Amino acid sequence: MSRIAYVNGQYVPFAHASVHIEDRGYQLGDGVYEVCEIRGGALVDERRHLERLSRSLVALRISSPLSQPALHFVLEEMVRRNRVRDGLLYLQVTRGVARRDHGFPEQPVKPALVVTVRGLDRKKIEASAAAGISVITVPDDRWGRMDIKTIGLLPNALARQRAKDTGAKDAWFVDSDGFITEGASSNAWIVTKEGVLVTRPSSNRILTGITMTVVKQIAASLQIKFEERSFSVQEALAADEAFLTSATQIVMPVVRIDGEKIGAGTPGPIAKRLREVFHQSAEIGRKLI
Amino acid sequence: MSRIAYVNGQYVPFAHASVHIEDRGYQLGDGVYEVCEIRGGALVDERRHLERLSRSLVALRISSPLSQPALHFVLEEMVRRNRVRDGLLYLQVTRGVARRDHGFPEQPVKPALVVTVRGLDRKKIEASAAAGISVITVPDDRWGRMDIKTIGLLPNALARQRAKDTGAKDAWFVDSDGFITEGASSNAWIVTKEGVLVTRPSSNRILTGITMTVVKQIAASLQIKFEERSFSVQEALAADEAFLTSATQIVMPVVRIDGEKIGAGTPGPIAKRLREVFHQSAEIGRKLI
Repeated sequence: MSRIAYVNGQYVPFAHASVHIEDRGYQLGDGVYEVCEIRGGALVDERRHLERLSRSLVALRISSPLSQPALHFVLEEMVRRNRVRDGLLYLQVTRGVARRDHGFPEQPVKPALVVTVRGLDRKKIEASAAAGISVITVPDDRWGRMDIKTIGLLPNALARQRAKDTGAKDAWFVDSDGFITEGASSNAWIVTKEGVLVTRPSSNRILTGITMTVVKQIAASLQIKFEERSFSVQEALAADEAFLTSATQIVMPVVRIDGEKIGAGTPGPIAKRLREVFHQSAEIGRKLI
Repeated sequence: MSRIAYVNGQYVPFAHASVHIEDRGYQLGDGVYEVCEIRGGALVDERRHLERLSRSLVALRISSPLSQPALHFVLEEMVRRNRVRDGLLYLQVTRGVARRDHGFPEQPVKPALVVTVRGLDRKKIEASAAAGISVITVPDDRWGRMDIKTIGLLPNALARQRAKDTGAKDAWFVDSDGFITEGASSNAWIVTKEGVLVTRPSSNRILTGITMTVVKQIAASLQIKFEERSFSVQEALAADEAFLTSATQIVMPVVRIDGEKIGAGTPGPIAKRLREVFHQSAEIGRKLI
């Protein structure tokens, strides 16, 4: 069965899925996106993703391409048509097609909606999680509205590539005060020597992850001591544990930062426990659907 | 005759000009562009635009989609096929189509090249220049590599729209020290009370405009006193003249900033003179082709 994409109202073969060259997403980066995990054929945290999508659209004054029920239908239909049990759903909304000009179109245009689905090699990700990954730190020179999930990801792409070039898996951004903001496509966490779980509070410097939000709830339910505050590269290097969270990687232990071992250089107990409980609750959530 | 676009090796009807949804320009903003003036059926400063395009591509490690002579041929062919005498040529190069992932594609892919051409209402622009335009100032919260001409223009689009919302024509960005960096799609200039022409030097905070470079040369040939340095909003408000430069607007007098009159509130003599001489030299350049 061939892969199907959803593009502006139509289900089309993936190979032929295209948008007009004057889609403002292509010429101006004028759009937002979401990535949602698919587990056992169901979307994980769909409601939260769609709520965040709405916030992104409101922030940029882009109207919703579909009503919430219609969008829900399309997403489910995409999972079904592509027969993906475990994978990712990607959705992107741009302001639409208009003659290239920086200002918004004077005549309202229909926002563009593109949805794709793909399978994920869960075994490979679990193997990564078991070994832990290496990250490098890079200066955070991104724009001032990282709280909006826009498709303007070039700085993130360059950071990820720089990590790959040095043999690391990912990059963590560091602000001008020496504090870690977030990963190239994830949120950053540490567990201090005192056993306190730390992650940076929401602001316009980071994107508040859906997985981040869920992991905070899990940590609370497990009564893990938790502080929401900025932490420096130094503090991360001296931490007992480090990890990142994202819809794709869930809770991914970070065992090296800039080449230096974190803790024993192996995934820590708190990261492992959070990952385990996340999996369990996602399973339970799935069975409730 | 219908409008023609060039898309990845083919001349296609504009209405059907499309790119794949996994073009990295669409999903990650991973691309660069140029806008070139067309005057009397010829491109203005084509060589300089193509040189800057090369610098942008090198900065992002995107290979050239075509050799320089082949690209030159395509651009001329596009002007010819669209029969545009006075207008703009837009060209965009992205890293190409690859499965969505932040890092660069592991198997090299062919960069994507899109070219469009459109006519410009020169009379309307001349009328704007005769009256002068209003700009507002907005905080510059863009990323740290404004020296690369990337398609990640959402902050610029939001700034331009904010200007339109307040009845102004354009926006000038202001850095955290209160100095003007550049316009949303132009470079910013003033003429001080002492008759000194001032514009900000090249750095990673601004894009060095082709028109800016030409205007510097014209100012030198006219022996206008010139300083390349940052200037503050205060200094701009107290200036005798203000103007912006871009390939579309050439030298465009700015007669109000944040609602306050600059000088007499009408286009100043130095801006007018620079515009006049730019037009003359572009005409001469055209006749030499």
